[in-house]
Amino acid sequence: MNPLETAKKIKSMEIRGALEIALAAVESLRDYTKGYRGSTFIRDLEKQASLLKKSRPTAVSLPNAVDYVLYLAKHHDRQELPELIDKFMKEQREALFKLSKIGAKRIEDGDIILTHCNSTAVLETIREAAKTKRIHVICTETRPRNQGYLTASYLAKHKIPVTLILDSAVRSAIEHFGVKKILIGADTVAANGAVANKIGTSQIASIAHEFNIPFMVATETIKFSPQTFLGNLIEIEEREHTEIRPKMRGVTMWNPAFDFTPPEYIDIIITEDGIISPHMAYTILKEKFGWELK
Amino acid sequence: MNPLETAKKIKSMEIRGALEIALAAVESLRDYTKGYRGSTFIRDLEKQASLLKKSRPTAVSLPNAVDYVLYLAKHHDRQELPELIDKFMKEQREALFKLSKIGAKRIEDGDIILTHCNSTAVLETIREAAKTKRIHVICTETRPRNQGYLTASYLAKHKIPVTLILDSAVRSAIEHFGVKKILIGADTVAANGAVANKIGTSQIASIAHEFNIPFMVATETIKFSPQTFLGNLIEIEEREHTEIRPKMRGVTMWNPAFDFTPPEYIDIIITEDGIISPHMAYTILKEKFGWELK
Amino acid sequence: MNPLETAKKIKSMEIRGALEIALAAVESLRDYTKGYRGSTFIRDLEKQASLLKKSRPTAVSLPNAVDYVLYLAKHHDRQELPELIDKFMKEQREALFKLSKIGAKRIEDGDIILTHCNSTAVLETIREAAKTKRIHVICTETRPRNQGYLTASYLAKHKIPVTLILDSAVRSAIEHFGVKKILIGADTVAANGAVANKIGTSQIASIAHEFNIPFMVATETIKFSPQTFLGNLIEIEEREHTEIRPKMRGVTMWNPAFDFTPPEYIDIIITEDGIISPHMAYTILKEKFGWELK
Amino acid sequence: MNPLETAKKIKSMEIRGALEIALAAVESLRDYTKGYRGSTFIRDLEKQASLLKKSRPTAVSLPNAVDYVLYLAKHHDRQELPELIDKFMKEQREALFKLSKIGAKRIEDGDIILTHCNSTAVLETIREAAKTKRIHVICTETRPRNQGYLTASYLAKHKIPVTLILDSAVRSAIEHFGVKKILIGADTVAANGAVANKIGTSQIASIAHEFNIPFMVATETIKFSPQTFLGNLIEIEEREHTEIRPKMRGVTMWNPAFDFTPPEYIDIIITEDGIISPHMAYTILKEKFGWELK
Amino acid sequence: MNPLETAKKIKSMEIRGALEIALAAVESLRDYTKGYRGSTFIRDLEKQASLLKKSRPTAVSLPNAVDYVLYLAKHHDRQELPELIDKFMKEQREALFKLSKIGAKRIEDGDIILTHCNSTAVLETIREAAKTKRIHVICTETRPRNQGYLTASYLAKHKIPVTLILDSAVRSAIEHFGVKKILIGADTVAANGAVANKIGTSQIASIAHEFNIPFMVATETIKFSPQTFLGNLIEIEEREHTEIRPKMRGVTMWNPAFDFTPPEYIDIIITEDGIISPHMAYTILKEKFGWELK
Amino acid sequence: MNPLETAKKIKSMEIRGALEIALAAVESLRDYTKGYRGSTFIRDLEKQASLLKKSRPTAVSLPNAVDYVLYLAKHHDRQELPELIDKFMKEQREALFKLSKIGAKRIEDGDIILTHCNSTAVLETIREAAKTKRIHVICTETRPRNQGYLTASYLAKHKIPVTLILDSAVRSAIEHFGVKKILIGADTVAANGAVANKIGTSQIASIAHEFNIPFMVATETIKFSPQTFLGNLIEIEEREHTEIRPKMRGVTMWNPAFDFTPPEYIDIIITEDGIISPHMAYTILKEKFGWELK
Repeated sequence: MNPLETAKKIKSMEIRGALEIALAAVESLRDYTKGYRGSTFIRDLEKQASLLKKSRPTAVSLPNAVDYVLYLAKHHDRQELPELIDKFMKEQREALFKLSKIGAKRIEDGDIILTHCNSTAVLETIREAAKTKRIHVICTETRPRNQGYLTASYLAKHKIPVTLILDSAVRSAIEHFGVKKILIGADTVAANGAVANKIGTSQIASIAHEFNIPFMVATETIKFSPQTFLGNLIEIEEREHTEIRPKMRGVTMWNPAFDFTPPEYIDIIITEDGIISPHMAYTILKEKFGWELK
Repeated sequence: MNPLETAKKIKSMEIRGALEIALAAVESLRDYTKGYRGSTFIRDLEKQASLLKKSRPTAVSLPNAVDYVLYLAKHHDRQELPELIDKFMKEQREALFKLSKIGAKRIEDGDIILTHCNSTAVLETIREAAKTKRIHVICTETRPRNQGYLTASYLAKHKIPVTLILDSAVRSAIEHFGVKKILIGADTVAANGAVANKIGTSQIASIAHEFNIPFMVATETIKFSPQTFLGNLIEIEEREHTEIRPKMRGVTMWNPAFDFTPPEYIDIIITEDGIISPHMAYTILKEKFGWELK
Repeated sequence: MNPLETAKKIKSMEIRGALEIALAAVESLRDYTKGYRGSTFIRDLEKQASLLKKSRPTAVSLPNAVDYVLYLAKHHDRQELPELIDKFMKEQREALFKLSKIGAKRIEDGDIILTHCNSTAVLETIREAAKTKRIHVICTETRPRNQGYLTASYLAKHKIPVTLILDSAVRSAIEHFGVKKILIGADTVAANGAVANKIGTSQIASIAHEFNIPFMVATETIKFSPQTFLGNLIEIEEREHTEIRPKMRGVTMWNPAFDFTPPEYIDIIITEDGIISPHMAYTILKEKFGWELK
Repeated sequence: MNPLETAKKIKSMEIRGALEIALAAVESLRDYTKGYRGSTFIRDLEKQASLLKKSRPTAVSLPNAVDYVLYLAKHHDRQELPELIDKFMKEQREALFKLSKIGAKRIEDGDIILTHCNSTAVLETIREAAKTKRIHVICTETRPRNQGYLTASYLAKHKIPVTLILDSAVRSAIEHFGVKKILIGADTVAANGAVANKIGTSQIASIAHEFNIPFMVATETIKFSPQTFLGNLIEIEEREHTEIRPKMRGVTMWNPAFDFTPPEYIDIIITEDGIISPHMAYTILKEKFGWELK
Repeated sequence: MNPLETAKKIKSMEIRGALEIALAAVESLRDYTKGYRGSTFIRDLEKQASLLKKSRPTAVSLPNAVDYVLYLAKHHDRQELPELIDKFMKEQREALFKLSKIGAKRIEDGDIILTHCNSTAVLETIREAAKTKRIHVICTETRPRNQGYLTASYLAKHKIPVTLILDSAVRSAIEHFGVKKILIGADTVAANGAVANKIGTSQIASIAHEFNIPFMVATETIKFSPQTFLGNLIEIEEREHTEIRPKMRGVTMWNPAFDFTPPEYIDIIITEDGIISPHMAYTILKEKFGWELK
Repeated sequence: MNPLETAKKIKSMEIRGALEIALAAVESLRDYTKGYRGSTFIRDLEKQASLLKKSRPTAVSLPNAVDYVLYLAKHHDRQELPELIDKFMKEQREALFKLSKIGAKRIEDGDIILTHCNSTAVLETIREAAKTKRIHVICTETRPRNQGYLTASYLAKHKIPVTLILDSAVRSAIEHFGVKKILIGADTVAANGAVANKIGTSQIASIAHEFNIPFMVATETIKFSPQTFLGNLIEIEEREHTEIRPKMRGVTMWNPAFDFTPPEYIDIIITEDGIISPHMAYTILKEKFGWELK
């Protein structure tokens, strides 16, 4: 598929999910490279890249992946590029698997784990751990779109004990069930280690801190945001109020899609490369996306 | 109405609301007293009282009010009793009004106030304050029964600016809107100053504490629980899971009706008698319900 | 002196100091009572009382003392009143002495004590303690009126070692000198135990809390405010900007006279009646000024 | 037994235990009253009282009990005194029983409770609760005199599951076992709610606070210290270094007998009269020992 | 200018300001290099470097810059050196500009920002942000030398709304104005991320932490101290007491020039290279001044 | 000595101490290399390495050192290996000395320092500092094996003032003596900066945090654990209960050898390479043991 079509499918949400979007984009750049017959390759590739990046402005994996291809293009022979892109795609596909293996070691037999929303990194880590350990998962409803129902169903399907609670019952559940760990995904990780994730995440982190319960984030490094290192703020998307309920006369509504959890509330970030302190986000950014920061 | 009928209507929820239940019960005892023709008054009155108290075991205003009538009966002439009960009922009816006058002084022009659920004491206090001050109210949805919609409608009807948010957006809203105060009602106040209220209250209190924002509780003193002074724990009612959503295969649900906010997270309790530290709950109990503690 | 003249001298600041104002006012009421020849005593006394209370609206000792005289007048024979007022005045004069004796027991040999502004209750307590114990006092400059210079001079005159620091050096001084206790006066104590005192007090309390150093307030009970129990907020006086410095073009200035220290940062309040938790403020108010709260 | 002999036996530790000492002292005053034939009763009784109080200067129950007898003597007829003393003794003997009934209600089925040292009030409360609930007790060794061994043995004898740990393993045990509550006794309760108890108590309280685990103190009200209200500091007894180990050349040792837990780390104090906030200590002192504070 | 003359002008404070001193020093080394005709270049250059470093022992930019020139001299041909020094000087001159561009992105429309003292990095960042956003700045007086007046004047001159407050009014101002961010400069950044800055900074940081308000430091990386990595403590300069006020008989004064803000109170450090967690100070030191640490 | 014999002596504890074990192991590999005559060197060396690593599974220095030799073997000529191993051994032997020089700079004249257990890194740092500064050391008994006695003896032998306290007296000692710093060793440092050390360490760290006292860890970098970066949990060794006391009927005992101190309670880690934030552990791991993480 060429970059233009891919960008369209990303825009129309035919292609969805942070990883799928990023992979589709770089794949289209690989195909574009293979088929390229012109003489201004880098300039033309940059145009395609720009097109792809605009197709979903709020994602972070997408520009990270696209910019990496540009970096490869500038530092390697054009002939090598398709193979290098394939290698990169393979690594990204394996990241989740590696991450879940590493994260699963952090879960102990008998653990009671609270999660929020519906994170693939979290679910794969729990499934991996549940192969050898008894785990009880508490999951929140996650209003307004109730992704917690998906989480609960998935775990139930895999025979992992799961209890569904209201978003407002987190603090009570921590005391009632004796929650041992919090495990949550990430939309984006900022340069200072702050984590942007589904609305409600930061208040769970604050309460975990109140009870001194480990708060762990599971995420691939491709979600780390190099732009924040240069000062850019991650903009909080405000979603349609109708997600909450139909319009009420005289009542305004505020429906932010995610919030920020400060690094001091995060004990570890579990990545495919290993376990890090959130304060190390900059180092990860440098190692992985150093080319971006120039 | 006689106590038996009253107890039935309380049980069937024909009579509802903490104050209405308590008043209906003591009124029926007043009528019983007026019509009494026997010779073992106190013993007979105690039977009626017991019947009424059993009609709603989880309320606290009901036994407080009924026990007060028993106390009056033991320390006064039977002829005086109806008038004393009328006086008590009048005081209870006025409590809300007094409380709102006192509480309104604590709200300043320009305040942004967050509330949870749907508390009459809170709404009356805000209405009173809004007569002379500009106030913006942030109110939570309050899953699972969405009492926040009632709160938002009521305020909108009275032309008080109100913004409805998700239960999981409290921490974000505090930062986004610059919330100045939290004002919340109470189901029961325990002897050590802990407040039982709608599920979600304690996590709002914890977050208010994180940001050092005043957390204020508005409640009539009849909701203070003398039994807790004697060690009794307030039992947390677990409600039907269907309030959350229909049954899901393999998934358990946990739906507690309320939670406990510890006194160290409560700055003041606004009562009809004045403003107190939560640590003074025992003193209030002694002054108001001392007869109960013997 | 009659109440009218007394009120004038209070207004013109000929009579100054919280205690001196209160005593002059009640003394004038005593003289008024002695010389009274009319037939509507209570009503006339109330007029005089009102006149006196208006002479300095921000003080708290003044209305407390005047209202107490009104209370005495209503519950005793007019003939007894002058003697009762004399007794009250004597108690107030002795309060400082009693307080300093009680507070001095809380200071240990070798203590390093930090204070702010220039509080008689603090200075008398330190002098009393210094009779038998070695004490080193750290005192802040207390901008904008530099009352810390008075504190330093007074202590130096009494041969008590004293070090003067900048208001911004409190946190450093705590670490550098190993400060053991903070001892500070009060303008007013609110019903929930919050203390209004010279601007800067609350940030010293916050820093004492950070290092877990006891923060002690020394004040006579006549400074407890019954009005706050009824919800009234203590208004923060904003003083002339010229106290900071002459006008600067394009620059606004903000010069509040005092701030509020929340009760959770106050370990004990030392009064002439004994040592209390700030959360007991309501009890003190009831015992001392119960007549006021009806 | 007469007061002189009683005082000797207290001094020689033939009579031991806070309650036993207090009861023996007041019993000897009762006998002295019964046999009194002189004409300066109050003065003579005061001498006996003084003698008894000096027999163990660091206790608080002893002077509290003796001063109460003096108070009774001054306000009642000498003939009534023996009976009043008997009544007081009976109340004190029943206090422990009442307290354990009240405290047991605060323990829930399945609780894991950590305790320190060897407190009768704690053990009786646990035994009472264990009649109907499953409880697991974690108890510390309590160096240097290892009273934890007595606690462990006592609980084991009563078939209550108990795990003995080192004093330094408290924080680890809280996480490892999921400790739900801390329950500890008291030597003395000060006017501001601070609790003096066996060395190590305050660091357990600090760690409980870190994990937001309820910290409960069980103690009879006779251990509340009226003297602290007047500013007196409770002196920390330094015990013989040989309790730690034999002398080491060039090494000093420091062996304080107890420490102070500040009121903000104490959730509730369980007394025979009911459950209170530590901030209410002054109110308890006034109600129980008000005669002492004049 | 040759190194000797430059050192003299630094000593006499003819050349002042951290950056100006550093640049003058390296410029003199460049000129020295250009004019060098001897045969023991490195040894001679080291002597000049040592001379320059001694001219202001407490600065950190000066030795950082001089040592970097030595490093360049050892790793490059002498002919290349002048050009490399020019490049370094250019980078340092641009650092402030880059930093302000990055930092300005962290300021949002409507922000109320509190600052202390008079930091060029802070002022340039605010000016940059104020080009497109509405900002209100609160600035402290900054006793004893009142650099806050300079800050206020500068902002007023640039039409940026500014309010001047006392150093003791920081906590009150945070509540009164609803301060959103703290932005402060740095004298030196230590290897563990602690920041040395004007006396008063650490207590502002502590109070920002109390209210959970972001505390941001703006500083060029040349102020990071490699020596602290090797254990060296940054010595706190004690300035003349006359800066506070004239001598007072019997009163000592303590006038430290700056204090340390621990890394846990610092959210981000804004540098010309990007935004980092203070915990990353070591990484910055290694990248920038790695040559120094051997 | 050959690897087999060395492994035996490690197992039998003839060779003890983290550093001695590691050095003996690599020395045996050096000798093995020197004497090697076969043709499958790497494979054979790996077998020897595996044998050595199994001899003490809980140590971290041992596998770190052995794996480093394997890494050297794979990247260098066999002939160079013995010399490279000698160089590595020399560095390890010097690490303690370097660390103590760096750490000693962090101790100031007049410091009162609390330590726990018996750490060579701590003792050498204190001895180095005591050459030029007055220091008073408080050391805990460190039950169950009382290593505090060794610490006290060692310091006394070197004429450094030392006071021995109970493990439960740490919080009291901090207040009583005015402890200025905590200095403690480490068994292992995890990838997120958490420190495993003798049971009791984490509760000292928690209390240091309560009083805002610097908590410093002194340890060689060879104790940093690369495995934790890959998710592996450090297993807590449970030691024989008889270390506490003989068996008690009906009583279980729990005797963990060490605990984990979270990075937020650790101000700095002093290593032979310099002073770092605990959050930098990953960077140290990468620099030192990067070869291990592939």
